[in-house]
Amino acid sequence: MKPKRLKLLIAYDGRLFTGWQSQAAGNGIQDHIERALAKIVGSPVRIHGSGRTDAGVHALGQVAHFEEPPQTRTTARWQIALNANLPPEIRILKVTRAPGTKQGFHARYSATGKRYTYRIWNDRFLHPFELGRAWLVPYPLDLATLRAAAAVLVGRHDFAGFAANRGEPDESTIRTISDIRIAKRGPLITFTFEGEGFLYKMVRLLTGSLIRVGQGRGDLAWLQAILSGAKKSNHCAPPDGLCLAKVFYR
Amino acid sequence: MKPKRLKLLIAYDGRLFTGWQSQAAGNGIQDHIERALAKIVGSPVRIHGSGRTDAGVHALGQVAHFEEPPQTRTTARWQIALNANLPPEIRILKVTRAPGTKQGFHARYSATGKRYTYRIWNDRFLHPFELGRAWLVPYPLDLATLRAAAAVLVGRHDFAGFAANRGEPDESTIRTISDIRIAKRGPLITFTFEGEGFLYKMVRLLTGSLIRVGQGRGDLAWLQAILSGAKKSNHCAPPDGLCLAKVFYR
Repeated sequence: MKPKRLKLLIAYDGRLFTGWQSQAAGNGIQDHIERALAKIVGSPVRIHGSGRTDAGVHALGQVAHFEEPPQTRTTARWQIALNANLPPEIRILKVTRAPGTKQGFHARYSATGKRYTYRIWNDRFLHPFELGRAWLVPYPLDLATLRAAAAVLVGRHDFAGFAANRGEPDESTIRTISDIRIAKRGPLITFTFEGEGFLYKMVRLLTGSLIRVGQGRGDLAWLQAILSGAKKSNHCAPPDGLCLAKVFYR
Repeated sequence: MKPKRLKLLIAYDGRLFTGWQSQAAGNGIQDHIERALAKIVGSPVRIHGSGRTDAGVHALGQVAHFEEPPQTRTTARWQIALNANLPPEIRILKVTRAPGTKQGFHARYSATGKRYTYRIWNDRFLHPFELGRAWLVPYPLDLATLRAAAAVLVGRHDFAGFAANRGEPDESTIRTISDIRIAKRGPLITFTFEGEGFLYKMVRLLTGSLIRVGQGRGDLAWLQAILSGAKKSNHCAPPDGLCLAKVFYR
């Protein structure tokens, strides 16, 4: 029998941290949660996240798991103990015992898809309440053009032209985007991306490229040329507007 | 003829500042705007706000005015120049030439009323996106009780029992609250207060006292006793949740 795993649903404001991944400086979100766990359990505990988020990127629904230690407690007690030992910019929204499937639950390998949102503040000045939470785009954006451009990207494509190289040359760059929704409410435009998985910096490169097209500085043929491998996009949107909204599991 | 006045509509995230009012340390919101104006105009400019907000209190619609200097510019240029010289936590949302009434426009004396909002996060833990922007109340709150309690406070009353003394003994403590609305969306409860004017810390004392009643730790008779002058409330809600939403002018 596989050992029981505890599954964490995590929200964070990414501004103060170097990203999800554990770092030598100890300021990754993973580092903070592992330190909190070590303090509670009394010995080192390794956690496994659904995937990395970059410095400054937020999460409403990051997921991680760890092996349940021998001296355990109720899930409600785990949540209280963790939040009491974490900086207030990181909160554990939920703790559950992972479903006991044959393969065992794994935050990364059991994930079937992800949802990211990207918030754009389309006005002349960034509202103070949106600092670090949205990207200021002070040019007119045509919503119909944005939606037509997004439709080009949906589907199964080689997204190598929308990825930053992270030194993993053998990784396939083919991914399926199942949906891109674009909503506007006042000056706030929200892009919602759903897909089975995303390459490194892919959502930010897709967003930056869509905004180029929305401004009229690129067209659908340019996007198609990137998808076909003829070009690479270097229009990367800043981390501020990006949020890992949800990780899907079967 | 009165000199022309320029009217500023101002939003700020109050966390980094010592409040609206100019302070010796120079970190009042007024200080920042006056420094930006002095830099633009080349000589000191005094601004007049609609009223003070405390350290940590936010604004979506603070109003201030200043005398238009001889070397002037369009209102759009004023807005660009001011925002370029202000910290990003303070934004000028709008600049207009003040209406030329007989008495002359005055941000404080021409105001006929104010709207404040107070945001309460009613859950076990404060969401990281609400840090500094809402008050965490982790106890069950009864909405019907809150609304009944709010109804007791609406109207013309002596609010001395809901005010902190700021050393202005001669000031009347009679005020009229025209409306208190209470809205709930998920864990977020928003109180909206409207009235001709509010005493020092009055909105935070009203909020803290309403929450006592909503928790069942005070009742309507207790609120009435405070209004009648028999008691004083010392239940002051933290600044985090408070926002000056709008200043009304005729």
